[in-house]
Amino acid sequence: MPRTLAEELASKQREISVAEFFERNRQILGFDNPLRALLTTVKEGVDNALDACEEARVLPDITVEIAKAGPDRLQVVIADNGPGILKREIPNVFGRLLYGSRFHANRQSRGQQGIGISAAVLYAGLTTARPVKIVSKVREEEAAHVLELLLDTQKNLPKVVSDDLTLWDRESGTSIALVLKAKYQRGRQSPFEYLRGTAIVNPHARLVLVEPDGTRITYERASTEVPPLPKEVAPHPYGLELGELSYRLKSAGGKSIADTLGKQFAGVTPRAVTEILARAKLSGKEAPASIHGEELEGLLAAMHAVRLLPPSAESLSPIGPILIKRGLRNVLGDVRPDFYAPPVSRPPKVRGGFPFLVEVGLVYGGGLPPDQPIQLLRFANRVPLLFQQGACAITNAVQNLDWRRYGLEQKGGAGLPTGPALLLVHVASTKIPFTSEAKEAVAEDPEVDREITLALQTAARHLKTHLSRRNRRALAQEKFDIILRILPKLAEKTSGIVGKPVPDLTPVITRIMDVVNIDGALEKGPSGLLVRADLTNYTPRARVLELFVELPAESFPTARFDPTPDGTDAELGRAWWTLPKLAPSGKTRITVTFPAATEIDASDLSWYVAGVDEAHLLGGEPLPGDWDVRLPRAVIEAAETGGEDAVLAGESEVDYDAAEARANADDDE
Amino acid sequence: MPRTLAEELASKQREISVAEFFERNRQILGFDNPLRALLTTVKEGVDNALDACEEARVLPDITVEIAKAGPDRLQVVIADNGPGILKREIPNVFGRLLYGSRFHANRQSRGQQGIGISAAVLYAGLTTARPVKIVSKVREEEAAHVLELLLDTQKNLPKVVSDDLTLWDRESGTSIALVLKAKYQRGRQSPFEYLRGTAIVNPHARLVLVEPDGTRITYERASTEVPPLPKEVAPHPYGLELGELSYRLKSAGGKSIADTLGKQFAGVTPRAVTEILARAKLSGKEAPASIHGEELEGLLAAMHAVRLLPPSAESLSPIGPILIKRGLRNVLGDVRPDFYAPPVSRPPKVRGGFPFLVEVGLVYGGGLPPDQPIQLLRFANRVPLLFQQGACAITNAVQNLDWRRYGLEQKGGAGLPTGPALLLVHVASTKIPFTSEAKEAVAEDPEVDREITLALQTAARHLKTHLSRRNRRALAQEKFDIILRILPKLAEKTSGIVGKPVPDLTPVITRIMDVVNIDGALEKGPSGLLVRADLTNYTPRARVLELFVELPAESFPTARFDPTPDGTDAELGRAWWTLPKLAPSGKTRITVTFPAATEIDASDLSWYVAGVDEAHLLGGEPLPGDWDVRLPRAVIEAAETGGEDAVLAGESEVDYDAAEARANADDDE
Repeated sequence: MPRTLAEELASKQREISVAEFFERNRQILGFDNPLRALLTTVKEGVDNALDACEEARVLPDITVEIAKAGPDRLQVVIADNGPGILKREIPNVFGRLLYGSRFHANRQSRGQQGIGISAAVLYAGLTTARPVKIVSKVREEEAAHVLELLLDTQKNLPKVVSDDLTLWDRESGTSIALVLKAKYQRGRQSPFEYLRGTAIVNPHARLVLVEPDGTRITYERASTEVPPLPKEVAPHPYGLELGELSYRLKSAGGKSIADTLGKQFAGVTPRAVTEILARAKLSGKEAPASIHGEELEGLLAAMHAVRLLPPSAESLSPIGPILIKRGLRNVLGDVRPDFYAPPVSRPPKVRGGFPFLVEVGLVYGGGLPPDQPIQLLRFANRVPLLFQQGACAITNAVQNLDWRRYGLEQKGGAGLPTGPALLLVHVASTKIPFTSEAKEAVAEDPEVDREITLALQTAARHLKTHLSRRNRRALAQEKFDIILRILPKLAEKTSGIVGKPVPDLTPVITRIMDVVNIDGALEKGPSGLLVRADLTNYTPRARVLELFVELPAESFPTARFDPTPDGTDAELGRAWWTLPKLAPSGKTRITVTFPAATEIDASDLSWYVAGVDEAHLLGGEPLPGDWDVRLPRAVIEAAETGGEDAVLAGESEVDYDAAEARANADDDE
Repeated sequence: MPRTLAEELASKQREISVAEFFERNRQILGFDNPLRALLTTVKEGVDNALDACEEARVLPDITVEIAKAGPDRLQVVIADNGPGILKREIPNVFGRLLYGSRFHANRQSRGQQGIGISAAVLYAGLTTARPVKIVSKVREEEAAHVLELLLDTQKNLPKVVSDDLTLWDRESGTSIALVLKAKYQRGRQSPFEYLRGTAIVNPHARLVLVEPDGTRITYERASTEVPPLPKEVAPHPYGLELGELSYRLKSAGGKSIADTLGKQFAGVTPRAVTEILARAKLSGKEAPASIHGEELEGLLAAMHAVRLLPPSAESLSPIGPILIKRGLRNVLGDVRPDFYAPPVSRPPKVRGGFPFLVEVGLVYGGGLPPDQPIQLLRFANRVPLLFQQGACAITNAVQNLDWRRYGLEQKGGAGLPTGPALLLVHVASTKIPFTSEAKEAVAEDPEVDREITLALQTAARHLKTHLSRRNRRALAQEKFDIILRILPKLAEKTSGIVGKPVPDLTPVITRIMDVVNIDGALEKGPSGLLVRADLTNYTPRARVLELFVELPAESFPTARFDPTPDGTDAELGRAWWTLPKLAPSGKTRITVTFPAATEIDASDLSWYVAGVDEAHLLGGEPLPGDWDVRLPRAVIEAAETGGEDAVLAGESEVDYDAAEARANADDDE
């Protein structure tokens, strides 16, 4: 028996198992109520499946089946076509917290902590005392292993309760079945929402959800390309702390500090090694493990002071502008938004030694609700974040931007703006700073915040341009509608009064309407996929127009253009034409043909027109200022100088070839 | 070398040390930037010190010294007068994550996770590679032990680098000195704010902060009572999960299930044991460890279905209304608020088997900024919460209340209201559901949310009453000021015109003014502390008034009243008088004397008056409806029936004794 207070207190001290800790604090892992527990379980299972498929370079085919298993219980089965897990690793992977393969790998992945799926196993055992069932098959073996196991909370170790073999009609894959206290419900923060979000940012995955009532929802893949596997990179000295440096030098095992500096850290060139050693007053021959105290501090200061290469972006796996657009379209198809802003993919930056990048997609109009706060879809490493929106750095960045400047309503210039918009923000990093193990919110960080804000501003500027164009066009359309309705009646009445026949109004209407229209659409033809752009000159005079198209660079080499473009830039996926002069009401067509298997859609091609003022253009965009193509401005200017009536009367013919020759001569000067 | 993909992936699987995990995810522990790291370090050190002092039943005397230790480094020294720590326990307590004495104790304490201070040691080592220095002395030993240690991240174990003895001029205590990458700054989320908040909810503690520039801030204690130590209680079956029950039955070691049910769980009476066994179809003689499968599920269902005693509140340590008020006053003294709402301390409730309770304090006016959002001070187990306000259930409850109904401005009836108010919300529980290990926000929970909302509503109703009274009084004061200024001038002019002398206006002014004023103040006299209440009848007629006082119940036995009260209720700390009839402009005084050492202040005494309408009362409150005292209503009614003029003329004398006799007779019926 303890005699004194200090002894009594000492007698109560003991080690706490990490599993006990999380059992008591299950809200930290995302298991504090039956709704959230279900979502977290599905999320951890699907994230693992996607990571495994990516590592195996296969297109993911993932099924989530949720079925009733008692009054307040559900059975969740998540199955994938990944590489499978060796039998000896199954117990630890699923039945032990803080065990995994991706924690020490310095590259982007969904699971990073070695906690997720084991936490679901812990929760299932806690609430139903039922073991989980794992089926896994690796390509090299004939049969699949079937293991039933529990997580022993006191020891944080797996307890296998059965072990068997079965036949499974797939080459490889893993499936996990858990029975847990849970509740199914559609709507915000549901597995339904999670899979919808996952489909948007993983357009290469095919996802199937079977709800407890038997409803089957399938997200077909919108891309058949497996995203490149991010590469593991050495840690970058920028942001490295003293304790970490000390550990790395001791465990490096290099024979000299010069050797270790060059090999164990990213971005350190041979020249940088020399500079670091000089600044730190080291010869370079010292044993790495022997450096300590002030010498160590001097070395770290030198590593931070010397100019290094930036961290490599190879460890990251951005979605990319084309797939962001395609993912959004695939899932938002029914909503039919008016406008997809060109997605923003920022270049990689560094935060405390870890590279990261930010991507933003913005969609506006169509069936999106106009009088509610905008929908914000947050993603981290291609995983949707559904809880803790208020605690997330992404939300903060969105709320702190003054959206009124970009055409959205926002009370007081802060908070979520209102309008028919959907905003996608993706943060990718080799280490996402989550606010807790539940991985539901990104912690505040000034550098991440700045990158998100920059990306949001770029997307918001596109929105602003779209909105002001839309307003202008709406006015033009309104004017045109009125003219079409009233002018004929007016002509009829007037003619009746003066007793003359009603005149042909078409030239007058065309003159008042005064637009060039461009109309693009995709057709499946016998020779492949056909994208056509029809241009009509509804202006009251003849025009010489330049047409420009931009398409996904990877599809460019297989594209066939008709007519042959006057210029191309294969690297940027661009082609352009100077069109034959179009008389008023004249039409012309350009076609682009792709092989049948190409993943392309009409909206992957952007059309731009020069030779007509932006105010007189419908259905296309004016050419952005950053295109470096030879514009035969002289031709267009020549066309413009002829007065409208003169052109209508066909009196002002332009010698195109001569004009181009002049323009080229100007450029060559 | 692995031959297949599955083998290659398997070869990368490994265990992750909990210290490695937190080193990489230090934002989860609250160490993601130099400002927050400093705050978290101070917080963990002071929380431990307060817990230790409470366990030793001593009044805490805690010093926090922060000093510059390099360009971006600070040294933090936290010293207490607690019981000290046995030498053999020091390394584990400070140098190992998930090690502690309070994790398994089912009672309220600040530290619950066994992570906090070791996380600070981990961070210090990581950023400066310097060991921390612990000095600790237990009462039974002559000298103090001095240990220097580091936390070995790969092993999650302490590494002692030096071990010595020293003399320390205190009976017992502990001090920790850490050198870490940190930044000092006053303001929100600073150690300064944290200690200020800690002083409010721990008025028994003396706290000293020495800032890097040498500034010394002392929070003297406002109470010399050590709060009662919360008792450890057995877990309550309500909210118990299957897995937990299974473990408890196996580890209970009881000889029969009947025995285990009655002894290992709180709230289970012998009658409840019988009922549970009957429902679960058990004889009661089964070995606890043998129950499993459907039998176990039936047992848990029965434990949840049968009526049990509610969980005991003995495991909780609420601050209590008097100390909340005193704590706020002690710290907010300079702000001089107009109004301290009576603090709200809700009765304990249960959440998932763990008892919890909610307390709310509200302060209004004075020097608080009137045009900014109200200040919200969040506390969990007597610890201020300074970060993650947006993610906290307390904030959400405050924002979801419609404060416009209670007199504060609030845009759209949601969000933080605006006004000169400060709101204190304290959640106490044997297990606070924090959103992360940094313990900065309480997770959402419907039951906690309901209790916070109820407490807020009670406090808000007091505010509403105060505001409407204040407005009424402001109007009365304004009216009085105008009368005093204009009436004499008017009289002078009129008298001049009619050629008569200026009449005495006092009776007229008194009649228009029409208030009873009460004025309470505290004086230090030779016989102790003297609180006096001066009553003045500024109404135009004689009044028989009842005066009531309420004082802290613990001070009641030593209080001497002059004159002797007509009635008292020692348990509730109440006394009351029927005052001799006061003629217009008449004055009377009541005094309450306390021994010189009493901790009391004028505002600890609340004065209430009956016998005058609320509209005619200044400086006191009308008697609340819930006072169960014998009100000689007949007396008052008799006094009221005499018309004002008649009373002014002294014509309507009331026989008080006879009236009281009648009132008593009425009550006795």
